[in-house]
Formats: sequence, structure tokens, C-alpha cells
Amino acid sequence: MKLLRHGPAGQEKPGALDGDGRPRDLSLLVPDFTPQWLSPAKLNALAAIDLRRMPLVPEGERLGVPIAGSRQFIAIGLNYRKHAEEAGLEIPKEPVVFSKAITALAGPNDDVALPEGSQASDWEVELGFVIGTTAQRVSAERALSHVAGYVLANDISERDWQMKRNGQWIKGKSYDGFGPIGPWLVTADELPDPQTIPLELRVNGELRQDGHSSDMIFPVAHIVSYLSQFMTLLPGDVIITGTPAGVGLGMKPPVFLKRGDVMTLSAGPLGTQRQRVT
Amino acid sequence: MKLLRHGPAGQEKPGALDGDGRPRDLSLLVPDFTPQWLSPAKLNALAAIDLRRMPLVPEGERLGVPIAGSRQFIAIGLNYRKHAEEAGLEIPKEPVVFSKAITALAGPNDDVALPEGSQASDWEVELGFVIGTTAQRVSAERALSHVAGYVLANDISERDWQMKRNGQWIKGKSYDGFGPIGPWLVTADELPDPQTIPLELRVNGELRQDGHSSDMIFPVAHIVSYLSQFMTLLPGDVIITGTPAGVGLGMKPPVFLKRGDVMTLSAGPLGTQRQRVT
Repeated sequence: MKLLRHGPAGQEKPGALDGDGRPRDLSLLVPDFTPQWLSPAKLNALAAIDLRRMPLVPEGERLGVPIAGSRQFIAIGLNYRKHAEEAGLEIPKEPVVFSKAITALAGPNDDVALPEGSQASDWEVELGFVIGTTAQRVSAERALSHVAGYVLANDISERDWQMKRNGQWIKGKSYDGFGPIGPWLVTADELPDPQTIPLELRVNGELRQDGHSSDMIFPVAHIVSYLSQFMTLLPGDVIITGTPAGVGLGMKPPVFLKRGDVMTLSAGPLGTQRQRVT
Repeated sequence: MKLLRHGPAGQEKPGALDGDGRPRDLSLLVPDFTPQWLSPAKLNALAAIDLRRMPLVPEGERLGVPIAGSRQFIAIGLNYRKHAEEAGLEIPKEPVVFSKAITALAGPNDDVALPEGSQASDWEVELGFVIGTTAQRVSAERALSHVAGYVLANDISERDWQMKRNGQWIKGKSYDGFGPIGPWLVTADELPDPQTIPLELRVNGELRQDGHSSDMIFPVAHIVSYLSQFMTLLPGDVIITGTPAGVGLGMKPPVFLKRGDVMTLSAGPLGTQRQRVT
């Protein structure tokens, strides 16, 4: 299934794509895609709905964050060799972990408002995933069974805040709207191997990032297992897995986002995003 | 008011201390201290309850995290000069920010289970606070009006995970139970100046930390204002403000927690905590 949420920000309703790729509204059956709706039993029950008999979502309606009530937004850094090189940082021997504020989450096509005075806001196309069942010290072999599904993500980053404001990256990763995810959550049954996703990002139509999740240093199963040694992962937690090469920081000279720019992202079955910078 | 939650983990009910310091149950009137109960209007309404007419909490009942449904757990590092010195780190020119997993939150007297094989788990007594109203780019002058109240916190830290596992501190700060807070939330009307709190921590009765919130490099008002430039703070967010000198890492040679140790913490009107290490 491809689960989505549609409607104005803060008033989204649950929905899903039907077999023809048309968004259908599920709000007559499902209150919202809160964490408890991400369990295997609930996802199975959702799959029993004949989507063609549900109302169509009105054409052109906004899509929101495809899940509701997430409590954590965790990110992996430097998970592609060429990106670590372009950032001038060492290739990690184990995953680099940081967090984004939960308030950074945004719909896939929402405008991105830069912080006032920002000189160094940058793009990062990424494969993301959402936890479906609590994961506590799980093995890599069992790890993928804790994943409800996968999303396309843009890990927007203010580089000056991330790197020149005294340490810890959270500062540069957490501004409102700096974490668009979606357009939909592809449930894990439809994507048994998450290392098969092409990842592409363009700025004003020019190709900047052209990567593939098969190049990740630490694959999704490893990330789930690794994180779950340090903390308990909860249903609804959003985890993004690092960006391939081609960010603005890595260009010579560096190029950053400016008002009026348009970012377009695509990731095969995970769909596409489009954000205008304001 | 001093708001608390009592009962077994996961089944806590809301309560408050009456004028004689006895815990009263409020579950007949209040479903739980979820974020919307932390607004000024709701806190005012709670203050209208004659606590002496509410049932007493059974003696010896467990106390839990004093608020429910928090989505973020943010921490400030190196906020006392002597602690920065003992950690061998530079005195920060602006706040060091990191996050703890929300699943690290624990009741004030819950046992602390060390991670298997942990060689470097350490204590950190801290002043914490809880956001009551959404804070987005607020001035230092307005900042304290966004605080619902204050808590005592222990920012338990696995130093090897924090500092030797490839960067970002979140890894060493997020283990289950590594964030006891409470015993109660002292509402902000009872503590107009949060820089007046003595902070003390003992291990097996020996005084290890003996600090005072007046020594913070960045006071609470500055922290709220500063954080709110980088991210939007939500009602229920828990923020802890850094630890004074006297952690195990700073001892020569370093001393860390071992099974059977007992930590006792106190912070004047914010109450006391006691955790046994298992």
C-alpha cells in the first residue's frame, strides 16, 4: 500500500493510492495514521479495504506528512562515501546519528521558508523509513520486520547553523519545514529490499544529486539494529538514512538555496516531491 | 502547584501535592497531564481545585514522569564553567544543544539498568523545565512565559557511547531510563526565578555534585529564546539545562556507576530523586 494524508496542514485526513495511482480518502474508516495504525495487524487490515470503493481525494489537494503523531525524527549522517568526501569528513566506521526537531516535518510539496538571514541552506535527498513495532536491541536479521514502510525525504540543512554554531548538528537540521517527507509511505510488504531505490534531486531543473540506496555504507537493517542498541525505537518514529553526493556544500564554490529556487526530488516507487523556496 | 503522576509505569494517573506536601489523586477530574494541560489557562483551572478534598495517593506508590505525551527531550551541554573544565572542553560561547531519546524519560525513583557491558555510565544532576505554550523565535524577555514549570532531572550518560562512538552525543544520552525527571513539576508561578535552585547529587551517600542554577552560563530565559530560533518548541517538550561540576568523568581517576550504586539527587523545592543502579 501507499498510505498518504491529504488536506490543509494540521487538518489532514488519511488516504491511500488505489491500483491506478489515484488518491482515495480513508477517513470514513480510519481516524488517522497514528502510530498504532502502523502495526503489522493494522496494516494487514488496511490492505483488506477495496480502495476503489472509497471516495477520491479532490484533485490538487495538498498532501501532508503521511503519518501522524510521530515522536522522534532521527537521521544518519555521512552514509554515502562520496558525500562524506565532498563534506570533507571522514568515512564513518559506524553510523553517525543525530536528530531533527519533530516540528521540522512537513508535507512533500510545502513551500520551504528559509530562516531570516540564512546564507547556507542546503538540500539532501534521502531514503527514509518509519518504525511499525517497538525495536529494542534487535538483530540486523530481525530489523526489517520492525519497519512499517518507506518514504522519500529531504533533509534540509542550514550549514552555518549545523557546523559553525558550537557542535551538535541538531541546530542546523531542525527549522520548521526542514524535513519534508512523502508523498506517501510505501508499506514494507511492497518494498522487501530498501536498498533498491534511486534517489534524485534537482534544483531549478538541474540535476544535483543522482544516487542509489544500494550505495549506502550502512543499510537500513543495520541502522535499525544499531540504533536499537542505544535507544528504544517506537512506532511512528521517522528515520532518514543519509544523502548521496551532490549537496550545495560540496560544489566548488558552494551553492546554497535562495528565494525562488525550486527543488524537485524523486525516488522511484516512493514518488516525487517539489518544494519552492520562499 | 506541584504536579505529579503516580502509579505503575505506563498506567500513571495525575495528581498534585496538597498544602501539607501530601500527594493527592486528580484522576477524577483530569484524564492526564498531556501537553494541552500545560497551557496557562489549564494550569489556572487546576489551581482552582481544593486539593484537600481529593483522594490521597496510597502511601509508597510509585511516582512516574510528571507529564505525559512529551514529544521532545532536549538538553544543553557544558552550561557550567567548572563542568566544562572538568570535561576538558572549551567554555561555550553559545549553548551546546543535543537531544535525548524520548524513551529515556523515567520516573524519579525508578531503578537504572545499565546497558550490558557499560564501563562508563555517569550521573548529571540538572535543572529541567517543561514548555507550556508553543515558542517560535521568542525574545529572552518573553521566554519564561512559555515555561509551564520546572523539574529536577538526572541526565545519565554513557561516556564511551557519547564520546567514542563517532560524534553526536545522542548515542550516549538515550538509553532507556537515562532521563529520570521529577518527582513533580513545580509550576512557573511558584518559581518566578529559576536561577535560584541548589543542585546536589550523591552516590552511595557521598556528595559528588554541589552546584547552583545561578552559576549557569546561559540561564533558562536565554535557552528558551536561543532554542526557539532554531526550532519550534511545543507544549510538553522537556528541556534540561546542563550539569554543574562533579561528574564521574571529571574525577581523577574517573569513577563510573556500577551495579548496586544508589544515586540521590535534591534540588530545593523541586524535590528529591533516588535511583538504584541495576
